[in-house]
Amino acid sequence: MRSGGRSERVRRRVADACLALLAAGDVDLGPSDVARVSGVSRATVHRWWPTKALLFGAALEAHTADLDTPTSGAWSDDLDRWCDRLAAFFSDPTEVSLNVVMAGDRHPDFRRAVLDHYQPLFESWRARIDQARTAGEIDADIPTDAVLLALVSPFVVVPLLFGTTIPEPTVRDLSRLIGRATGTGGAHEHATGA
Amino acid sequence: MRSGGRSERVRRRVADACLALLAAGDVDLGPSDVARVSGVSRATVHRWWPTKALLFGAALEAHTADLDTPTSGAWSDDLDRWCDRLAAFFSDPTEVSLNVVMAGDRHPDFRRAVLDHYQPLFESWRARIDQARTAGEIDADIPTDAVLLALVSPFVVVPLLFGTTIPEPTVRDLSRLIGRATGTGGAHEHATGA
Repeated sequence: MRSGGRSERVRRRVADACLALLAAGDVDLGPSDVARVSGVSRATVHRWWPTKALLFGAALEAHTADLDTPTSGAWSDDLDRWCDRLAAFFSDPTEVSLNVVMAGDRHPDFRRAVLDHYQPLFESWRARIDQARTAGEIDADIPTDAVLLALVSPFVVVPLLFGTTIPEPTVRDLSRLIGRATGTGGAHEHATGA
Repeated sequence: MRSGGRSERVRRRVADACLALLAAGDVDLGPSDVARVSGVSRATVHRWWPTKALLFGAALEAHTADLDTPTSGAWSDDLDRWCDRLAAFFSDPTEVSLNVVMAGDRHPDFRRAVLDHYQPLFESWRARIDQARTAGEIDADIPTDAVLLALVSPFVVVPLLFGTTIPEPTVRDLSRLIGRATGTGGAHEHATGA
């Protein structure tokens, strides 16, 4: 059993406090603010998360913990799951608030922390597309970055700018559209023409 | 010749002043602010743009004047042009600043004004997709809203959240991807498999 103050429970309280502060637009958070909001002692916060960058990291780690990459099935099935997860994740009020803070160049250090944090996730997303290519489920010359952008961006834009969620049938349509774009699914099943 | 103060030159100065104020995050603009920034007399501004909603409208009208819908050629050619325009428009610093103001629910009246203003443009975009369907250039069951979302969203997200522009080759890839998704172009030209 660990003797330090960095147990999972403490980490979660600190992360939640950071998320609450960030979601309220309080980007200049420091150990004192986090101690106040979390109820964790200032000494403990100072000891384990002495910098704003570490606090950002703790917050983003907790926030994106469930945003994994679907790798359990066929490409088209995983696309469906992926779209469901993206729809849920990016319409979460905390996520919308973090995107508001990230938008524009008002808080470059927070934006940098977010982009750094997401890099491994983006890599895992790219790897899923590469895996589908290797498995012959998508065409060999499908450009990975364009697929990622077309797949993910709608789920970011609609809650952030329109304040709504994408209706469930449109989530399905988006999944199917990316499936067609990548060479699987509908493209061969449907007649061309009006 | 018009005797009123609402000449095109005055309108443009008022619109530019509103855009400058909005881009600086000054969403609570009124005729007095606009008169100060534009150099147009307060009486003239008060007379023709008495409400914040009218000032928002003037700003958005000027801002989106060049964002027309490509209708000059074949679907795949127009997709290329469309992507070029979207890339240029949504990476414009003023547009990024307006999206920052619009993001989240901090300024619901501005967001409402933006969504109302874009409605006819969105309709024109939908009509372009319907036209391609009627012309047999895209499959009959392609869902219009999903195409629009996948087409436009990447160009919004990247400048707004990442602070970068989409590289030119990726712009081309996105155009080709939507072409494939809608049933034209590459999908039939490329071999499947790794």
